[in-house]
Amino acid sequence: MLQNEWSKSLNIEYPIIQAPMAGGITTPQLVAAVSNAGGLGMIGAGYLNPDQTRQLIREVKALTRKPFGINLFIPEQCVANEEQIRKANERLQKYREDLNIRSETPILHNKSGYEEQVNIILEEEVPVCSFTFGLPSEDVVTKLKSAGIYLMGTATTVTESILVEQLGMDVVVAQGSEAGGHRGTFLEKPEMSLIGLMSLVPQMVDQVNLPVIAAGGIMDERGLMAALCLGAKGVQMGTAFLTCKESGAHELYKKAIMNVPEDETVLTTVFSGKHARGINNQFIKEMSKYESELLGYPFQNTLTKEIRKAAGEQNKPNFMSLWSGQSPRLSKNLTAAELIQQIVDRCKNIGDSMK
Amino acid sequence: MLQNEWSKSLNIEYPIIQAPMAGGITTPQLVAAVSNAGGLGMIGAGYLNPDQTRQLIREVKALTRKPFGINLFIPEQCVANEEQIRKANERLQKYREDLNIRSETPILHNKSGYEEQVNIILEEEVPVCSFTFGLPSEDVVTKLKSAGIYLMGTATTVTESILVEQLGMDVVVAQGSEAGGHRGTFLEKPEMSLIGLMSLVPQMVDQVNLPVIAAGGIMDERGLMAALCLGAKGVQMGTAFLTCKESGAHELYKKAIMNVPEDETVLTTVFSGKHARGINNQFIKEMSKYESELLGYPFQNTLTKEIRKAAGEQNKPNFMSLWSGQSPRLSKNLTAAELIQQIVDRCKNIGDSMK
Repeated sequence: MLQNEWSKSLNIEYPIIQAPMAGGITTPQLVAAVSNAGGLGMIGAGYLNPDQTRQLIREVKALTRKPFGINLFIPEQCVANEEQIRKANERLQKYREDLNIRSETPILHNKSGYEEQVNIILEEEVPVCSFTFGLPSEDVVTKLKSAGIYLMGTATTVTESILVEQLGMDVVVAQGSEAGGHRGTFLEKPEMSLIGLMSLVPQMVDQVNLPVIAAGGIMDERGLMAALCLGAKGVQMGTAFLTCKESGAHELYKKAIMNVPEDETVLTTVFSGKHARGINNQFIKEMSKYESELLGYPFQNTLTKEIRKAAGEQNKPNFMSLWSGQSPRLSKNLTAAELIQQIVDRCKNIGDSMK
Repeated sequence: MLQNEWSKSLNIEYPIIQAPMAGGITTPQLVAAVSNAGGLGMIGAGYLNPDQTRQLIREVKALTRKPFGINLFIPEQCVANEEQIRKANERLQKYREDLNIRSETPILHNKSGYEEQVNIILEEEVPVCSFTFGLPSEDVVTKLKSAGIYLMGTATTVTESILVEQLGMDVVVAQGSEAGGHRGTFLEKPEMSLIGLMSLVPQMVDQVNLPVIAAGGIMDERGLMAALCLGAKGVQMGTAFLTCKESGAHELYKKAIMNVPEDETVLTTVFSGKHARGINNQFIKEMSKYESELLGYPFQNTLTKEIRKAAGEQNKPNFMSLWSGQSPRLSKNLTAAELIQQIVDRCKNIGDSMK
C-alpha cells in the first residue's frame, strides 16, 4: 500500500523523505540510516562550503548504496549600509559578552558556494537534489537533469508550485505552516504563505501534475496516511528525524523538542534574517523587539553564527536556534530505522480501519 | 467505514458537522438540509437575540426530524473609556460616510442574551449544543447535560482541549489554523494558537479521551479521510457549506470565496475586535494600520455592524467580513445534500486505495 509509482520511480521502498535540515543535523549516519531503512536520506548542505559538501557526500556514499539526496539554498543578495550593520551588531553585543565570544565581529558578504556545490553534485553523481529559498536557473536545471539527477523544488503556495513545475522539476515539496525551520517561501511575504497542510496539499494536487510531497508537522503513521489521503505521494519529515539517535542535533536541542508543547513554537527572523519556526526562547523573545532593525539573510545569519555556536558549546539552549515543527509532542528518540519501521507497521492498521 | 461509534452515539449517518457560522449564514434550510442528508446541521446563534434564537430553532424543527445543533458564544466583558471609543469611532467614520449610513453611532454594552439562549435550548430540547470563545460555567453544563443535550467544546490547543474534557463535555472540536472565521482560542494569545490540523489533531487525540472533531480547511472527501487517519472521529466544515445553495451568505460573498486563491486570507481583528480569518479586502488593509487602537470584542463588532450590513445591501464586498478558511480553491456551489453525497461516495475510493 505504501509503495506507489512515485516511490518506485525514485527507487525507494517507502514514501518517506528525511528533510534536509542544515546546521550539522544531517550527519552521514542519519542520512545513510534513513536510506538503508527504505526512505530517502537527505543532506542539508545549505550552510556547507564546497569542501564540506563533497566530504559529507562521500561519507554518506561509504555508508549506503541506496539512493540519497542533498539540499541547496538558492543564494540571495542582501544589502545593508554601515549604520544598519552597526545597529544590528549593537543589538547582539550583549549576547556576545554573555557568552564570552572574543572573536572579531564577522565580515558580511554575499559569497555563496552554490555554483561549486552544483558542480560537486554532478561530479559525485548524487541521485537526488532539492532546492529551498527559490528556484535554480534553467541552466542549472538542464545540467542536473541531463546527468539524470532527480530534482525537487519547495513551494509554500499553489502559485509557487506552478513555477516549480514550469521549470521542469520532478517533484514539489508542499511546505505547510506546521513545518519547523526556514520557510521556503520565495514569491511573497512569508506571513501570507502560512497555509496548513490540510489546505495546501489538496489545492496544490489539483493545480499541478507533479507528484506533491507533504512537509510540516508529520511525525508518524497518522501524518503519513493523512498526507496520502490528501493526495500527496509521500511525506518529508524533519523534526521527527531530528530527535533520532543518529541526528547531529545538540542533546539539549533534542531534549527541548521532546519536552515542549505544540503551542510554544513561533515564527521568527531574529536568527537568520529569514522567517523560520522554532521553540520560543530568551533570544527570540528579547530580539523580537528589534525585528525591524535586523539585517536580511544571509547577513543576520552570519552575525548570529558565533552566538549560536557558543551557546551550543556552553549548553545554553536559551541562545540556540531550536527549529521545530508544530508537533513536538509526537517526537521520539528512536534510531531512524526503528522510526521508519514503526511508521510502516502501523500504517497497515490505519489502512485496515479505512476499509 | 464512515459510520463509527461516535457518529452512532450522535445518531447521525456520516461524521460530518456543518460549522455553526454566525451572521445569517446558517439558514433553517441549510441546517435542515445537512441533517436530512445524514450530517449534523448547526445553527450559528452567536449574534442572535433570544427571540431570533427560538424562532430559528423552531424553523429548523419544522424542516427536519433528524438531530441538529446550535452554537453559542460565551459572553466576554469588554472595557473601553470614552477616549478609546471616540478614537475607534473616528477610524470608522469614513466608511459610515462612504456607505451613507445615517443611523446613530451604536451604544456599546456588554449585554448578551446568552443566559436566555441557554434556557431556550433547554425548553426547545435542541439535541446538540456547542460553545465558542471559552467554556460555559459548570452550572450551565450540568443543566444541559441533565436534559440529555450533547455538548461540544472548541479548542485550538491541547491545553484548551484538556479543560473542555475536565468540564465534562461530550466532544471537542479541534480548530486548526486553517479555519475561517473567529478563532475559538480562550487561554492565550491567538497568534500562539495557530496550529495546523496535521499537528493539532494527533497531539490532541493523544492527550484527551474525548472524541476529537477536526475543523479547518476541510472541504471534501480528502480532508475527511485525512482527519480520520489523524485520529479524529469526524469533521466540522464551515466554508464548504457556506458556498452551498441553501446558505444565507451574500451572493458576492460566495463568489469571492469561489474566486480567491488559498494565500489571500488573513487573520484580522478589525471587524470584531477578535481574531478571525477572512479574505483580505480594502477594509482590512486600511484598518489594520490602527489595529492597536481598535476596541475589544464585542464593542468593535457592534461599531462595525452597520458598516457590514450596509456593505451587503450595497453589494460592496470590500467592506464586508468575508470569513473563509484556507481552502477556498476547493469550494463548490452545490446543495448541501449533493456536497455530502459526493464526499461520502468519493471516500470509498480513497478507502479502497489505502488497502
